[in-house]
Amino acid sequence: MKKALLSVSDKEGIVEFAKELVKLDFKLLSTGGTFKLLKENHIEVLEVSDYTQSPELFEGRIKTLHPKIHGGILYKRDDENHKNQAKEYNIEKIDLVCVNLYPFKKTTLMSDDLDEIIENIDIGGPTMIRSAAKNYKDVLVVCDILDYERIIKTLKEGKDDEKFRLDLMIKAYEHTANYDSYIANYMNERFNGGFGASKFIVGQKVFETKYGENPHQKGILYQFDDFFNHHFKALKGEASFNNLTDMNAALNLASAFDKAPAVAIVKHGNACGFAIKEGLLQSYTHALKCDSISAYGGVVAINGSLDETLARKINEIYVEVILAANVTKEALAVFEGKKRIKIFTQENPYLVRPYDLYDFKHINGGFVYQNSDEVSEKELKNAELKSERKASEGELKDLEIALKIAALTKSNNVVYVKNGAMVAIGMGMTSRIDAAKAAIMKAKEMGLDLEGCVLASEAFFPFRDSIDEASRVGVKAIVEPGGSIRDDEVIQAANEYGISLYFTGVRHFLH
Amino acid sequence: MKKALLSVSDKEGIVEFAKELVKLDFKLLSTGGTFKLLKENHIEVLEVSDYTQSPELFEGRIKTLHPKIHGGILYKRDDENHKNQAKEYNIEKIDLVCVNLYPFKKTTLMSDDLDEIIENIDIGGPTMIRSAAKNYKDVLVVCDILDYERIIKTLKEGKDDEKFRLDLMIKAYEHTANYDSYIANYMNERFNGGFGASKFIVGQKVFETKYGENPHQKGILYQFDDFFNHHFKALKGEASFNNLTDMNAALNLASAFDKAPAVAIVKHGNACGFAIKEGLLQSYTHALKCDSISAYGGVVAINGSLDETLARKINEIYVEVILAANVTKEALAVFEGKKRIKIFTQENPYLVRPYDLYDFKHINGGFVYQNSDEVSEKELKNAELKSERKASEGELKDLEIALKIAALTKSNNVVYVKNGAMVAIGMGMTSRIDAAKAAIMKAKEMGLDLEGCVLASEAFFPFRDSIDEASRVGVKAIVEPGGSIRDDEVIQAANEYGISLYFTGVRHFLH
Repeated sequence: MKKALLSVSDKEGIVEFAKELVKLDFKLLSTGGTFKLLKENHIEVLEVSDYTQSPELFEGRIKTLHPKIHGGILYKRDDENHKNQAKEYNIEKIDLVCVNLYPFKKTTLMSDDLDEIIENIDIGGPTMIRSAAKNYKDVLVVCDILDYERIIKTLKEGKDDEKFRLDLMIKAYEHTANYDSYIANYMNERFNGGFGASKFIVGQKVFETKYGENPHQKGILYQFDDFFNHHFKALKGEASFNNLTDMNAALNLASAFDKAPAVAIVKHGNACGFAIKEGLLQSYTHALKCDSISAYGGVVAINGSLDETLARKINEIYVEVILAANVTKEALAVFEGKKRIKIFTQENPYLVRPYDLYDFKHINGGFVYQNSDEVSEKELKNAELKSERKASEGELKDLEIALKIAALTKSNNVVYVKNGAMVAIGMGMTSRIDAAKAAIMKAKEMGLDLEGCVLASEAFFPFRDSIDEASRVGVKAIVEPGGSIRDDEVIQAANEYGISLYFTGVRHFLH
Repeated sequence: MKKALLSVSDKEGIVEFAKELVKLDFKLLSTGGTFKLLKENHIEVLEVSDYTQSPELFEGRIKTLHPKIHGGILYKRDDENHKNQAKEYNIEKIDLVCVNLYPFKKTTLMSDDLDEIIENIDIGGPTMIRSAAKNYKDVLVVCDILDYERIIKTLKEGKDDEKFRLDLMIKAYEHTANYDSYIANYMNERFNGGFGASKFIVGQKVFETKYGENPHQKGILYQFDDFFNHHFKALKGEASFNNLTDMNAALNLASAFDKAPAVAIVKHGNACGFAIKEGLLQSYTHALKCDSISAYGGVVAINGSLDETLARKINEIYVEVILAANVTKEALAVFEGKKRIKIFTQENPYLVRPYDLYDFKHINGGFVYQNSDEVSEKELKNAELKSERKASEGELKDLEIALKIAALTKSNNVVYVKNGAMVAIGMGMTSRIDAAKAAIMKAKEMGLDLEGCVLASEAFFPFRDSIDEASRVGVKAIVEPGGSIRDDEVIQAANEYGISLYFTGVRHFLH
């Protein structure tokens, strides 16, 4: 008769699972709370302490750490010496191990009490999982409630072959690695400010993309805390690797102004259009004007509802991706028959941006890791006026928009905003003045009049040349961090031209 | 009398450590090979199987998984019930646990034999480490040979306070998390092509940077496989967060041509200068010409020796960082007294680039993960000639350089190379033609003659406009992936102008 050891912290589904195992002729062993629950449900089960003839000790700290349990899990069924030893010491095979662990993570989310948190570090559980996984050729290891059904089905069909067990083995080590990674990160977060000697970046698979950044690379999306499961739904098409990074940029931008009807258009990770007007339709129309050529094949993020009118407007050109807080049926119908467009929704009134506390970047041989950058309204409110002229109310609104776009665009960048809409942007270049010149050149091509616009830069202007250039096109107000050794020249230039100049003191390099 | 349990796979230093523990009045418990070694060294030690009265089973698969061991580690010393139970069941305190684990990783690097690899998954070891770490208030957990000395010192000085034990606890969970993360990644690599349900990106701390990408962010460098420990040495100054990412870009470029005397200058992650000439001095001089303005405050990577002559040349302007394969004493002396410059070396004849198999990018809520991109000579050799005109030998050499720079520069980009030196580059922009225009504008400013140069683009030219633009400045040969629906127009344009055109079929988007 086969034996199954059940010891679960989360009891969901365990009674049904146990019943099915009994039907499959398993003899059940169990501990503490699990044993009690099974008994209450009239399931025949033997308590581990009776089985080992060794008592449960120290409030459950010691239950299963016993040779009779781990020998039964670990001994090699096809090894004569092992078999003889097992016989000699009366160690019987355990064929299935079903364990889920003390809720360490959940406890940390609910409590700050270190003793309580430490108490929720499971010792026996991971050991059983790891033992069973090691001997996966002969032992089924079950560590996920969601697997109960398919395991019973597989057992009934006699399809629990080595491949099946191997997959469960991998899942088991993922599970214990997850558990200890979370413990290590938590402890480093709590005691070392997040920067420990080891850092574990752990993601759960959402889906594989068709390919990676390029067709010869394989790509995949991993998530933290189920974000994409909860806030990302494909209504049409599948997100590519590059779509995902572009959507990230577009989402950051379009969600940066609370409930404002913001629309962002992104290409290659950078904004090529952005506006906040009276409504989403107007916002989109103005966002598109900034660089309608780059918008071709771009990603549009919409902080609100994609309705039919807006959909018809967007459908006039080819955008590759729309990410909207929500999408009406009528809007979706507009794109019927359009093969190339992809539509994603968060099914929310407004866009939700996940706020990860940390940011990281791969460099060959390792990665750099840092606190996430954040830009808020406060920055402009706390900014220092350095010029004689003050910005008007309207200009201040535009400055806030320009400042946020600049903070969310690749360095070096300069961002020009007028009446709630971005009218020019230069980015990703090695020289700031070149970025300014490129932006202005593009605005001219697009037939946009920059007269009366405002300007933001994510880092200080090193020379007055950018101010000279700004004045030529009619910039009225500028916000930048300040901090150049030639700040005086920059301030003087602003005053010469009657431009308002604000220093925030906060740089926003983004690479 | 205190008890220490020693059970190590790697025996280095254990004899000395054990002797010191005996001097500190510890009674020693040990298993298998460790026990034998200590005995041979005439150290008084009790075998765990004698202590537990339970035999070592199944070739060592079962040694320490016993209530007397784990009870002794885990029971709470300040809990009356625990104390009474311990007394009742004759469970004595174990006060120090010293364990290192079966060499799973090492085994995977030496063998493909799954049975051997599985055998090297340690079960008892991680359990002891995790038990001891859980009860860190009363148990010292030692899982690193490099800690033996400081632990003995701390014990002798009586300074093993709670903070000390807590640090060891964190290290212990980092250790077990590392171990299982490696197992999970290995198994996914072997059986799921690297793309498992969970992905563990694990780095070991190298150093904290002064700050992150910006001063209000904290930053840190984590490494894989000790790369930075072995191949990165600061001769002057400390690497900032942005220096590290820039150096990564510069290193990728300068090391992409084997032993060629390549010099790359990088600013904000992108090349603003690159050349391969007769020697490093000439290469640097030409690299600088491409955009001497952006080079200000940039990162220079040198594929060879930084000697005094080159150092004097570099010292003529302000570069922030030099990364050289090696640096002579005389060269270093040139920068004495220069406070701002930073100098790093790999202490190698040529630059070494770590080749990570995978690449990843943070997006809020998770990360995208992919096979690393790679560009090689083969790509140009296998490229298809699409035009009537063939490129000359010299042009082919330039095309190879342009192609590699394009693959390692942020999209969209266009790269112009002439006689081994980059003469213009446009990058990071949302439109390819804009990048071309910006590049040409800059080359004019720099007074560079593009006549006779070659051009590479990391992705296809969507229209013939970029070829028209190229012909105007005298481009003679072009390499690009091809694949636009308007490739015919592009080929026709090339033929009209007598430009050689090669299609590689391989795109190199980089974002």
